Amino acid sequence: MSEPLFQRLTLIGIGLIGSSIARAVKARGLAGHVIIADQSEVSLRRAEDLGLGDRYCLDAGEAADGADLVILCTPVGASGAVAKWIAPSLKAGAILSDVGSTKAKVVKDVRPHVPANVHFIAGHPIAGTEQSGPDAGFATLFENRWCILTPDQAEQDAQAIERLSAFWRGMGSNVDVMDPDHHDRVLAIVSHLPHLIAYNIVGTADDLETVTKSEVIKYSASGFRDFTRLAASDPTMWRDVCLHNKDAILEMLGRFSEDLAALQRAVRWGDGDQLFELFTRTRGIRRSIIEAGQETDAPDFGRPHKKD
Amino acid sequence: MSEPLFQRLTLIGIGLIGSSIARAVKARGLAGHVIIADQSEVSLRRAEDLGLGDRYCLDAGEAADGADLVILCTPVGASGAVAKWIAPSLKAGAILSDVGSTKAKVVKDVRPHVPANVHFIAGHPIAGTEQSGPDAGFATLFENRWCILTPDQAEQDAQAIERLSAFWRGMGSNVDVMDPDHHDRVLAIVSHLPHLIAYNIVGTADDLETVTKSEVIKYSASGFRDFTRLAASDPTMWRDVCLHNKDAILEMLGRFSEDLAALQRAVRWGDGDQLFELFTRTRGIRRSIIEAGQETDAPDFGRPHKKD
Repeated sequence: MSEPLFQRLTLIGIGLIGSSIARAVKARGLAGHVIIADQSEVSLRRAEDLGLGDRYCLDAGEAADGADLVILCTPVGASGAVAKWIAPSLKAGAILSDVGSTKAKVVKDVRPHVPANVHFIAGHPIAGTEQSGPDAGFATLFENRWCILTPDQAEQDAQAIERLSAFWRGMGSNVDVMDPDHHDRVLAIVSHLPHLIAYNIVGTADDLETVTKSEVIKYSASGFRDFTRLAASDPTMWRDVCLHNKDAILEMLGRFSEDLAALQRAVRWGDGDQLFELFTRTRGIRRSIIEAGQETDAPDFGRPHKKD
Repeated sequence: MSEPLFQRLTLIGIGLIGSSIARAVKARGLAGHVIIADQSEVSLRRAEDLGLGDRYCLDAGEAADGADLVILCTPVGASGAVAKWIAPSLKAGAILSDVGSTKAKVVKDVRPHVPANVHFIAGHPIAGTEQSGPDAGFATLFENRWCILTPDQAEQDAQAIERLSAFWRGMGSNVDVMDPDHHDRVLAIVSHLPHLIAYNIVGTADDLETVTKSEVIKYSASGFRDFTRLAASDPTMWRDVCLHNKDAILEMLGRFSEDLAALQRAVRWGDGDQLFELFTRTRGIRRSIIEAGQETDAPDFGRPHKKD
């Protein structure tokens, strides 16, 4: 058997992403020893029951001690505090990374605490489901998905970046490297705006007086239910994302609202040609996503559905 | 074998919905004889190759002649013209219905052409996928979905309504009866607004200069791709829906934009509590939809995904 990529891996936070990494690492032999930390004793015990790691600590500092790779898998709002906590335990030459959905603010919060002899390379696997907690993870979550690494100005060690890239490739991901600010703009449109829109429309429907909640639920198969998956995502994580990627989110929200106002005007004035043009243009994007292997071409996303 | 509910069924339009009815009717023996009409010779020949009916006509009037039940399965914009065309062929006591996504305007367009001795009961099965055409349909499309019938003031014959309800129940649907205007308000929030929002966000992403289309496609699994299913729906059908249900759609768009402005303000001012409150409230709706059997509880909508 070949040598594992890292002798000692510490995961701080054992929710959907942390527990998926733990499972993938075990399934593919990517680390010699896996230490799991979580501030919730319940989650930690659950991780132990599931056999996700080799050692379990409530104390993140203790967990990080002597690790070759430490990955923060907490909501982004906690990154700075956790980094400060574990900084004294980090061993020389270790790699510190994370999986947060925003990057510029994480780099800003974490960087000041990172010792000079430690490589800090922020990261973001573009994968997930709407579920949370140690039970929600699975070993194949990252397969055929992208992981974006966002090394900042203070960290440009090509060897360390390549080691971390190999780790993600080992879990089945493709790896891209980009600037933290560009990452945040990209994610604002592909992820943060969609989540906000989904949360918003579900809230709008919930507030109606003329249409009952029971009607919204009964007839949701006509479109509405597609939005509810994103709107069922972890509220703490998404609150933090909004607070951390404010500028890019506000820019995308502004563009979206502007476009929506134009669409509203086309509806009001009965401009069928403009509507038809937009409704035709958008079909091509879905085809490209399916061709890129990032979506299924089964109708209804492949929702369980009998076909004759 | 029991007597079929209708001796002679005519389907005008053989796209996703029409061809699904044809398949369900055959699978469950709901009609003695099925006549299919479509203005497209290609679709009609395809329907014949698929063996969807017993007879195939380009002429809708000829197809409707002598039928006990005629269902218009065309885009809603065509309903009035088709009704006018087939009116002279409708037999006394026949039921005329449709499957359009808007109802008040369809009733307004169709009603003037309906002979006094024909029952016109508009209808709308709340089922579908993003695909179109005679190949896209399947016999189980309506199973466990709702079909809404919207008899107007001029048609309150309980026996005819019950016969048509039995037909839809025969295809596996639950049936609700409501006023056409109420239907349009309900559908504006559960279907029309979600489609417009989906089309709009895909358009916004397509227009960005700072984020490339290839980035949007690569990283779409982080949320964006959920919107692309609705945004891949039939453009002609959705243009007609927008033109036909203008008032209700504009009302829902107005509420959505108002709520979005409040959300945008919460992001701008970093109001984490307000964000958290909204993001928590919306989770309950998804749970209710799953409990009502209108959605799968599998992560990612049950998209093909290996789990360990």
